Amino acid sequence: MDKHPEDMNLKEIFIEMKNISELIVDLAYSSVLFDSEAIADEVYALEETMDELHYQLTIRALLASRTREDAEQISEILNVATAIKDISNHAQNIAETVARDLDIHSVIQESLKYTDEKIFRVELEEQSKLIGIPLRESELASRIGVTIIAVRRGKRWVYNPPKRFIFSNNDVLMARGTEEGHLILKEIAKGRRSKW
Amino acid sequence: MDKHPEDMNLKEIFIEMKNISELIVDLAYSSVLFDSEAIADEVYALEETMDELHYQLTIRALLASRTREDAEQISEILNVATAIKDISNHAQNIAETVARDLDIHSVIQESLKYTDEKIFRVELEEQSKLIGIPLRESELASRIGVTIIAVRRGKRWVYNPPKRFIFSNNDVLMARGTEEGHLILKEIAKGRRSKW
Repeated sequence: MDKHPEDMNLKEIFIEMKNISELIVDLAYSSVLFDSEAIADEVYALEETMDELHYQLTIRALLASRTREDAEQISEILNVATAIKDISNHAQNIAETVARDLDIHSVIQESLKYTDEKIFRVELEEQSKLIGIPLRESELASRIGVTIIAVRRGKRWVYNPPKRFIFSNNDVLMARGTEEGHLILKEIAKGRRSKW
Repeated sequence: MDKHPEDMNLKEIFIEMKNISELIVDLAYSSVLFDSEAIADEVYALEETMDELHYQLTIRALLASRTREDAEQISEILNVATAIKDISNHAQNIAETVARDLDIHSVIQESLKYTDEKIFRVELEEQSKLIGIPLRESELASRIGVTIIAVRRGKRWVYNPPKRFIFSNNDVLMARGTEEGHLILKEIAKGRRSKW
C-alpha cells in the first residue's frame, strides 16, 4: 500500500481489499499452526486496515450514486466489499484463538500440520545479505523454494511484491514454503547465512 | 476427499474445511473475474460440502464432550470451525454476483485484473496427453508456470494434489498461473497440444 486509504480511488481500494482477504486467511491459519502472536498481530493489523478500506469504499460508493443505474451497480459493489470484509473478520476470529493462550487447540494445530507448504513470517535484520538487493536477484523461489507473498514495511504492505522489489532493513516478509525453506530463510534474515 | 464426511474423524474434517476455505476464496474471485458460471458452480458445490462438514464436525464435537476440559477445548474448535465455514459463506456471496447477470461489476472485474497470476478452471478431455500420467511427469509448473491447486473428480476433491497424482479423463483442474499458462493448459486439456 503506497497510499493512505483516503487518497485511493474505488478501484485501488477494491484491489487492496482483495489482496488483504487472500493474505489474511493464510496468515490466520499460520498464526494458529505456529502458535505465533507475532503472526496473529499481523492479522489484527490487516483487519484494521480492511475496516478502514471498507469505510472509505462505502463513502466513495455513496458519493458516486447519482442515477438509479449507478445505485444498482454500486449496491453490488458494496455487497462484494462487505463479503470481503467479512472474510477478514472471520480470519481474525481464527487468529484470536492464539491470544486466548489456552493451549487447547492441539486438534487444530495437528490438522494444520498436514500441508507441505506453510506460511511463515520472517523479519530482516541489518546484517542480512538480502538487504539492498531486488527480489529477482535473491532467487529465493528457485534456490530455496520459498515464495514471498507479501512484505510489510512499517505500516505499509506490498502484496505479491514484483521482481524489482528491493529488500530493506526491518522488512517483515510473509513467505510460503516448506519447513526447510523456512529455516534457511530465517538464517538468511538474521545474517547468519550469506550464501544459499 | 476420499471419504464421505460421515466416515471422517474430527481431524480429517478439520483439514478438509481448511483446504476448502483457502480454495473457495480464490475461486470466488476467479468466477467474477472471468464472469464464469462454471467456476461459480464449483464455489457453490464447495460451499455445500463445507456445510455438511461443519455439521458433521459439530456432531462429533458434541459427542466427544465429556468433562469440563473437553468442553472448553471443543468449544474453541467449534469457534474456529464456524469462522472457517463463514469464510466460505462469504466467498459464495462473492460468486453469487456472477449469477445475477447484471453486467454491472465492471469495477470489480477491472480490479481483479490487476494480478499477474489468476486462478482458472480447465476440464480434461479424452484426447488430452495429460491423462494417465502423474503430476510430476507433467512438469506443468516448470514448463508452463502453472500450478494445479486442486482437482475435482466427479464429486471428490483433491486439494494440493501430490506429485504422484495421476490425471484422469474428465478431471476438473483448478490451476494458478499467468494468462499465457492458462491458454496453453486449455489447449493441452482439449488434446490440441501434445508437447509443452
